[in-house]
Amino acid sequence: MAKAVLTPQSEDFPRWYQDVVAKAELADNGPVRGTMVIRPYGYAIWERMQRELDDRIKAAGARNAYFPLFIPESYLRKEAQHVEGFSPELAVVTHAGGKELEEPVVVRPTSETIINVFFAKWVQSHRDLPLLINQWANVVRWELRPRVFLRTTEFLWQEGHTAHATQDDASAYALRILADVYEDFALDVLGIPVVVGRKTERERFAGADATYTLEGMMGDGKALQMGTSHELGQNFARAFDITFQTESGDREHAWQTSWGVSTRLMGALVMAHGDDAGLRLPPRLAPVQVVVMVVRAEDGAGERGAALAAELGAAGLRVELDDRVDTGFGRRAVEWEIKGVPVRLEVGPRDIAAGTATLVRRDEPGKQAVPLDGLAAQVPDILGEIQVALLAQARERRDSRTAEVQTVDQAREAAQTGFARVRWDVVRSAEEDLVRDTLTVRCLQRAGGDVPLSSDEPDLTAVIAKAY
Amino acid sequence: MAKAVLTPQSEDFPRWYQDVVAKAELADNGPVRGTMVIRPYGYAIWERMQRELDDRIKAAGARNAYFPLFIPESYLRKEAQHVEGFSPELAVVTHAGGKELEEPVVVRPTSETIINVFFAKWVQSHRDLPLLINQWANVVRWELRPRVFLRTTEFLWQEGHTAHATQDDASAYALRILADVYEDFALDVLGIPVVVGRKTERERFAGADATYTLEGMMGDGKALQMGTSHELGQNFARAFDITFQTESGDREHAWQTSWGVSTRLMGALVMAHGDDAGLRLPPRLAPVQVVVMVVRAEDGAGERGAALAAELGAAGLRVELDDRVDTGFGRRAVEWEIKGVPVRLEVGPRDIAAGTATLVRRDEPGKQAVPLDGLAAQVPDILGEIQVALLAQARERRDSRTAEVQTVDQAREAAQTGFARVRWDVVRSAEEDLVRDTLTVRCLQRAGGDVPLSSDEPDLTAVIAKAY
Repeated sequence: MAKAVLTPQSEDFPRWYQDVVAKAELADNGPVRGTMVIRPYGYAIWERMQRELDDRIKAAGARNAYFPLFIPESYLRKEAQHVEGFSPELAVVTHAGGKELEEPVVVRPTSETIINVFFAKWVQSHRDLPLLINQWANVVRWELRPRVFLRTTEFLWQEGHTAHATQDDASAYALRILADVYEDFALDVLGIPVVVGRKTERERFAGADATYTLEGMMGDGKALQMGTSHELGQNFARAFDITFQTESGDREHAWQTSWGVSTRLMGALVMAHGDDAGLRLPPRLAPVQVVVMVVRAEDGAGERGAALAAELGAAGLRVELDDRVDTGFGRRAVEWEIKGVPVRLEVGPRDIAAGTATLVRRDEPGKQAVPLDGLAAQVPDILGEIQVALLAQARERRDSRTAEVQTVDQAREAAQTGFARVRWDVVRSAEEDLVRDTLTVRCLQRAGGDVPLSSDEPDLTAVIAKAY
Repeated sequence: MAKAVLTPQSEDFPRWYQDVVAKAELADNGPVRGTMVIRPYGYAIWERMQRELDDRIKAAGARNAYFPLFIPESYLRKEAQHVEGFSPELAVVTHAGGKELEEPVVVRPTSETIINVFFAKWVQSHRDLPLLINQWANVVRWELRPRVFLRTTEFLWQEGHTAHATQDDASAYALRILADVYEDFALDVLGIPVVVGRKTERERFAGADATYTLEGMMGDGKALQMGTSHELGQNFARAFDITFQTESGDREHAWQTSWGVSTRLMGALVMAHGDDAGLRLPPRLAPVQVVVMVVRAEDGAGERGAALAAELGAAGLRVELDDRVDTGFGRRAVEWEIKGVPVRLEVGPRDIAAGTATLVRRDEPGKQAVPLDGLAAQVPDILGEIQVALLAQARERRDSRTAEVQTVDQAREAAQTGFARVRWDVVRSAEEDLVRDTLTVRCLQRAGGDVPLSSDEPDLTAVIAKAY
């Protein structure tokens, strides 16, 4: 039905993506290159993501704070390795208050530097550790090839920054965030079966000793990096002089982590679950979980539909009543499909006569008649099933498009359409060659899928793919 | 006790304010002039404010969205009157991506212009109206005389922007936000008895037909503008070409409103309730509602204190256990006073022997022994009493420092120490003179306290004060 509205995925996946983002009213391009307007429907999804992540971040003991948007240019020179990574991406304010500034200020590309300047003030004693800070903020990195949600000049994110007394504590925390916050959120809320592992030295964050990552497979078989958690060692602590007095009275540099996810997750959501008819939203994120569509306002269908919507709302569900009977039914149905609403309940005169509603689940084809009596009480279970089904479907696709291979050439071929899994010691020396072919080692995993603590561990598997 | 720590209010109120903000760990100054770091304790209060406001904004039908930080300079020229108001305050990005930009971009001082460009796209038909949008964001206005929370170069706020089919609908919505969102929040959550009224023509927002305001009285008798709601008429709709097709097929300009509150409310909270011992937080906003202080870990006081804290947590309260018995009791008590924690429960060996805890309420002097049995169940009521008491105390101060006067000279004198209420027709012609004396008409009210719909209504009262 929606094939007339959206470009089919098989024809042009990037264009399908753009179509969905526009037609589902998730976002628009902003006037300044690479910026975006997140529209109410898109922002409502992002707010749910934020709430779910924030709850998990707080449960992991971190506290939210807010640091300034503007960073003195000199701060970025404190950590040379770090500035290398960002310099061409910086937006610089040179004029303010009607005149030229003595020192230009940079619009934060990340808050690493400014936060560490304050960590140096706040951390004095081992009693001040661990210091666990998170920030929700906008950041700016000038993009030459922007794509809405995936790579934008301005994006929204959370960035966690922590300081610990020992390397073990920092390491454990970086892994805790990876598992308890990000992986749990990806599986339980986003419904995306992420591949979790360790970045190679080539791919890790500049200035980190280790970078852990979550990689999702999108509908076209490509990987999307959905979040990272870094062990920073004492690198920033040395650059920013973050020291503390130990229990025995010595002065030591703190051990640090940082970790973040961004509005990129919106792109992941679209591309991991969407189909030719549009978005398919996991019920836990859907701004509208159930839409009750009045087919025609005859024979009490309008009243019964409104009553059903009220019952569903009273049951705590996010429900919308679509009684725009002056607009064609097909057009309305297509709209709800594009918007990815998990459950549609159609109520028309024929349904009323039969004492039923027509149930359409966004996660499976077909329609079914269901008795109106007691229907509202069953919908929460149906939503639960859809939440599980979307994860299962994404896992099935991921597994079917993941190949276990033995050689670099086989990996190269398999990674054209999905993920290639190959022994790390087989591809290690070919990593640069792969990059020239627009393939990357997305991460390293142990045999059982666990996260390795070093890229020199024996028997590691490299996951290779094209990536966003 | 805390007199050694904070400058007394009576000695130097602005310095007391700075001391409290620093010692309660609400915020620090940022490195770029006028910016601030909102520390975790301060941010936790702001998050509660956001949640309370956001719930009310959504109940009023508005939906959140996000518009870009960067605005093309040309947009700000579209509404000449508007740019007049902001031009010297703008921060301008001239370089990005490693080179000079063809068109400089402005860091938003407000999103009025960019939002209206999108409203012009989204609003086509009367069916698209009302369009009710809210945004939580950071904005930047270069400040020459910054003061943390009150006037900062970057601040956090929400800005609502709406478009309506009729003037009546827009007017009603501006007043609904004023009453149902802002005034309700100020009274029920902040515990600040705001004076609500209409700005004079001189004081209203450039480009608005009417500005409504909420003015709080601070501890020094000065006024703080805590929020505004504007009727914009068709002014922006004309400048940005926001038109819609009416039911009869005509094309008309939309009627608009905008409204906002900011992290300035943090300053209001400090100055409206604080005393010489520090903050006093309304329980609905307090990150820690109850602190259980173990006086000494003897005779089971440590265990009983921990158990009490657990009971309070289980009752849904935000509780902290202070068992740092190695730190002096007085020092810890002073810390909790500065932080404004509403209820302190002290448990020491003597309390245990008597089967009591020592209850200290931040809203009233003195201590009292209360039976430990059943104590946890009583604390929610005590918190409710404190919420009410703080509002009552603020109202008492406001009323005692508000004078009903008859002449301009009397108003001038009364406004040195509080609010002067005087007939508008008596002071109207003297408004500029008052401004020269650093006094302003904060707002106009009708006899019964209602908000006037015009400054030309008969029998209006002008509220005159010094202001932040």
